Amino acid sequence: MLIKERLFTPGPVPLPPQVIKALGQQIIHHRTPEFTEIFFDVRKKLQQLLDTERDVIMFASSGTGAMEASVLNFFSRGDKILVINAGKFGQRWKELGETYGLDVIDYQIEWGKTYQKEKVKEIVEKNPDIKGIFVQQSETSTTTYHDVEFLGEISNSLDDCILVVDGITSVGVYQVYPEKSGIDVLVTGSQKALMLPPGLGLLYFSQKAEKRLKTSNLPKYYFDVAKEVKKQREGQTAYTPAISLIIALRESLTLILEEGLPQLEKRHSIMAEATREAVKALGLKLLSESPSNSATGIYSPEGIDGNKLRKRLLELGFRVAGGQDHLKGKILRIAHMGYFDFNDVIQVIAGLEMALIKEGYTVEPATGVKKAQEIILKNI
Amino acid sequence: MLIKERLFTPGPVPLPPQVIKALGQQIIHHRTPEFTEIFFDVRKKLQQLLDTERDVIMFASSGTGAMEASVLNFFSRGDKILVINAGKFGQRWKELGETYGLDVIDYQIEWGKTYQKEKVKEIVEKNPDIKGIFVQQSETSTTTYHDVEFLGEISNSLDDCILVVDGITSVGVYQVYPEKSGIDVLVTGSQKALMLPPGLGLLYFSQKAEKRLKTSNLPKYYFDVAKEVKKQREGQTAYTPAISLIIALRESLTLILEEGLPQLEKRHSIMAEATREAVKALGLKLLSESPSNSATGIYSPEGIDGNKLRKRLLELGFRVAGGQDHLKGKILRIAHMGYFDFNDVIQVIAGLEMALIKEGYTVEPATGVKKAQEIILKNI
Repeated sequence: MLIKERLFTPGPVPLPPQVIKALGQQIIHHRTPEFTEIFFDVRKKLQQLLDTERDVIMFASSGTGAMEASVLNFFSRGDKILVINAGKFGQRWKELGETYGLDVIDYQIEWGKTYQKEKVKEIVEKNPDIKGIFVQQSETSTTTYHDVEFLGEISNSLDDCILVVDGITSVGVYQVYPEKSGIDVLVTGSQKALMLPPGLGLLYFSQKAEKRLKTSNLPKYYFDVAKEVKKQREGQTAYTPAISLIIALRESLTLILEEGLPQLEKRHSIMAEATREAVKALGLKLLSESPSNSATGIYSPEGIDGNKLRKRLLELGFRVAGGQDHLKGKILRIAHMGYFDFNDVIQVIAGLEMALIKEGYTVEPATGVKKAQEIILKNI
Repeated sequence: MLIKERLFTPGPVPLPPQVIKALGQQIIHHRTPEFTEIFFDVRKKLQQLLDTERDVIMFASSGTGAMEASVLNFFSRGDKILVINAGKFGQRWKELGETYGLDVIDYQIEWGKTYQKEKVKEIVEKNPDIKGIFVQQSETSTTTYHDVEFLGEISNSLDDCILVVDGITSVGVYQVYPEKSGIDVLVTGSQKALMLPPGLGLLYFSQKAEKRLKTSNLPKYYFDVAKEVKKQREGQTAYTPAISLIIALRESLTLILEEGLPQLEKRHSIMAEATREAVKALGLKLLSESPSNSATGIYSPEGIDGNKLRKRLLELGFRVAGGQDHLKGKILRIAHMGYFDFNDVIQVIAGLEMALIKEGYTVEPATGVKKAQEIILKNI
């Protein structure tokens, strides 16, 4: 029997038809006025997205490439940094720092929790020479939101510290305005709420961070921000750009800006709340104590293997993500970022209910759907 | 706020990605071996679809064109025909018959009902010289199923009568095997359960009908079946074919044949039953006493204007159809034919519930969804 597969993973995410159309075109050459015109348009739209007039650099890389760039260009060997390590991607900041010889203070946090303000204060009081604080605004592995504004204040209170934020699953979900939030370096990737295939890494940096470009002594070539800034201001890139993705990014940014960032943030907030409340109504436990609006992590109920539940959901038409590392087989992660609306949330909740029932879980059908509908009805 | 529009109209219907991909290609020329190869493949697949080794003719026309062809090629001026006229498309058979000077017995049936066997028997007893019985297997305007097998028997009991069936919203929903059901002429169109854009009309005719090709004296040029038979057996068409649609039809037929007709029929039956039972659970009344599995017609509840309800559903992301002619503003028609699965049904039912609530109807959210889920869970 025909059952359509629906993608509810926290990256890659479904592509809007406008993006698919833009991708399904003959390639154009990048060293042309035609491409430069598109490039400038995308640059301007990225600035609108982040409410800034500063450079937003595009790399032909995944989000991790942009993460690496934010270590390589703004730090020097031996620099002391604080990593908010609350999941797989927090761990990645730590690994990047160590790889390039930074002095990493690894603030390990139980997966599913966010940082404690007192603990951060304590660390920086003992280490006033911290040169950078690294955090995920939305930690995808644990579907956890970390407040960045507090960290911005802390960073600014130090002598010479910058706040580096992984916004890979927060940009396009929340209104992320680095200049208002004290973010000095912000990175994101194409395959999340920007609704594109993977392969494009984006990087914003503040005036304060810019000064580091001249002093940073870490080895870099492909991810050389200063070199890219120069080229990209001219409407080109230092190395071959991801042409198709940049052309498609114009489409997804148009969609985002037409909806408007406040509306977009509201939509994600409604979808996330509806998902969380529906899941709780089904008697399931959320993974995160500070849940992100990009995806919802759920513990598989006692006695039901998470991987089996996930496989069952796939049979019913829904591809969701499982847990990473020690959460493998224990959780599901259901995305609601990017090209989703509240009807998608209702559908996946109904699917989850049917998958649970098929796996022997006792629940009345539509219990979660009802809860989700109630929340949606209050908001539309 | 971004809300995606979902098409739930009984034609056009959503296109599968394979079809969209096939349509999004450079055109090829039709007077080429390349096209002939595709044409023969499609011809063979159409034969598999209808379980026949006879010709299935393709016209560059809408379904109405194929309806016209089945009048023009198999009848002569003054021929007496019986039209089962139970909706807008039954009326079309009548108009076609009258336009070409046939002697039409117009068996008018209240919209939403099917024919009475006794009444048909009575008519043919009084008119043993009837040359054709015309019917919709699925009358789209009233979402009503008409049994064709009984009419096949009646037709065969007469001296020289053929059964002409409009299968525009039954082929691809039911297992429609004309040779098993006594259907002599069967027409369908591309934009329904064949999951294509409009523009392709299809026509099957039996051995019994074939004899009429030589005797029919109605004027025809574009819709000349004998001429097309000759050309199409050679892998070409008499006039320019709808090239892209034929290429895309290969894709949709592949999908249909891979699923298998019994599974396809079962899927549509589950989707239709879930829709009907959900709607009844919401306290709404079905339009049809003999509902088709292609679409479900529903009366808008007392005090709620059907057009307003439909508009509200559209605001919530669902484009459904309204009523035609005297049913305008009174009903909704929700399709579930072609590229739909049970998750789509759940989604549109949840949308209908929210639209009803927004219009002031008193119902608990998820009442219909629960019913739909129960039916689906029993069947998967």
